[in-house]
Amino acid sequence: MIREKITDRDNALFEAGIKLGALYHQFTGSPINLDSVSSIEQAIQKCISVQPYVNEISVNIDREMLKSKLGNKFGYFELQGPMLRVKITVKYGSVKAKVGMEYDTELNYPLMKIEEIEELNV
Amino acid sequence: MIREKITDRDNALFEAGIKLGALYHQFTGSPINLDSVSSIEQAIQKCISVQPYVNEISVNIDREMLKSKLGNKFGYFELQGPMLRVKITVKYGSVKAKVGMEYDTELNYPLMKIEEIEELNV
Amino acid sequence: MIREKITDRDNALFEAGIKLGALYHQFTGSPINLDSVSSIEQAIQKCISVQPYVNEISVNIDREMLKSKLGNKFGYFELQGPMLRVKITVKYGSVKAKVGMEYDTELNYPLMKIEEIEELNV
Amino acid sequence: MIREKITDRDNALFEAGIKLGALYHQFTGSPINLDSVSSIEQAIQKCISVQPYVNEISVNIDREMLKSKLGNKFGYFELQGPMLRVKITVKYGSVKAKVGMEYDTELNYPLMKIEEIEELNV
Repeated sequence: MIREKITDRDNALFEAGIKLGALYHQFTGSPINLDSVSSIEQAIQKCISVQPYVNEISVNIDREMLKSKLGNKFGYFELQGPMLRVKITVKYGSVKAKVGMEYDTELNYPLMKIEEIEELNV
Repeated sequence: MIREKITDRDNALFEAGIKLGALYHQFTGSPINLDSVSSIEQAIQKCISVQPYVNEISVNIDREMLKSKLGNKFGYFELQGPMLRVKITVKYGSVKAKVGMEYDTELNYPLMKIEEIEELNV
Repeated sequence: MIREKITDRDNALFEAGIKLGALYHQFTGSPINLDSVSSIEQAIQKCISVQPYVNEISVNIDREMLKSKLGNKFGYFELQGPMLRVKITVKYGSVKAKVGMEYDTELNYPLMKIEEIEELNV
Repeated sequence: MIREKITDRDNALFEAGIKLGALYHQFTGSPINLDSVSSIEQAIQKCISVQPYVNEISVNIDREMLKSKLGNKFGYFELQGPMLRVKITVKYGSVKAKVGMEYDTELNYPLMKIEEIEELNV
């Protein structure tokens, strides 16, 4: 076992994970229909972007998946994990980490993953 | 003990309560600063308005209270109950119920209460 | 239009609605599997029972529905509305309101409804 | 700019961040008093421990801070970020990451941070 020095890269990935976990558990469950979906997309983007180290964020809610769920009597549904497609870039010191969340049809799971790591100014 | 027949009025109040409880526990905790506050206000209004029986809704987040909390290093805070001033009108059958939520400084508590009940078409 | 006096009964129903809305939007989304399900059931009961006017509460999470969702690679799922069967009795002044939430298979919707209203000491 | 290969270490930190973000935004806002606090502590531990790659978790809610907030008329409060002291160890492949969350009195902020990174079997 070797105890490691904590780097900007470690912190960039850690912070990126925090944002995705926060976004998911803060906003899933929100009541939505086709009229309100763009408003909640924008609010999620704005809210998560005020957190520390967030450089860029895009949030898309899958309208087709939402439509397929609107068949109940009341004409609305709730935001669920599989509807979310999110990309976040975190910048911590000299490192940029791009992470994302997207429904993985094979795993049947809204998968969060690291997409790219860049060391800046090197 | 007398078992009562359930009326439109009962349902209007019940539904109104559901909306306030839902709103509070869905959206408090959202990261906010002065730039994102109007976006989350609008999203809350839109999201709650898609729920059954909601006739009108207004959501205001107290900017002064938010400002007083922004003193931490990171320049943002989270939406907390006492910042919320909400008015919702629910219409169920022949009854309109107006309910609200507002910080009560004396109780030090974000108090939800019934403001007005109207029997329509009578 | 007639403006009505607000009664204990109105408040009992309003408070009962608040509890169900709160419960749903606070706890759905919680990660669960068959090992953790009874722990979250108990915590939900305890947490909601500390809120004002709650007289009794029972919370059951449908194990069969949960099992049917555990097929993903990671062996866990999240608490969703349709898994919840909740009964709450609220007492406000002279009135007891029993309300509940249960998945309605016909509506395909986790339906909240008033089950019984009792005027006490009458 | 150099694009980097994604390592077990990157994933360990990313996953650790996800868990803290999820925990915070799922469970803050839960109604609590001194009777229900240990039940919600246990439920949080159980729920987060079912998520992928979680090796160990401890959750403590600060009773003294809670007590100081119970002065309202209703004798309960809600779980807030500053009350939480959490330690999570994530294991991803050959790497263990220990992370934590604790109220930082100087920053007046519930700070999440990396505490230790270990490369195993090296």
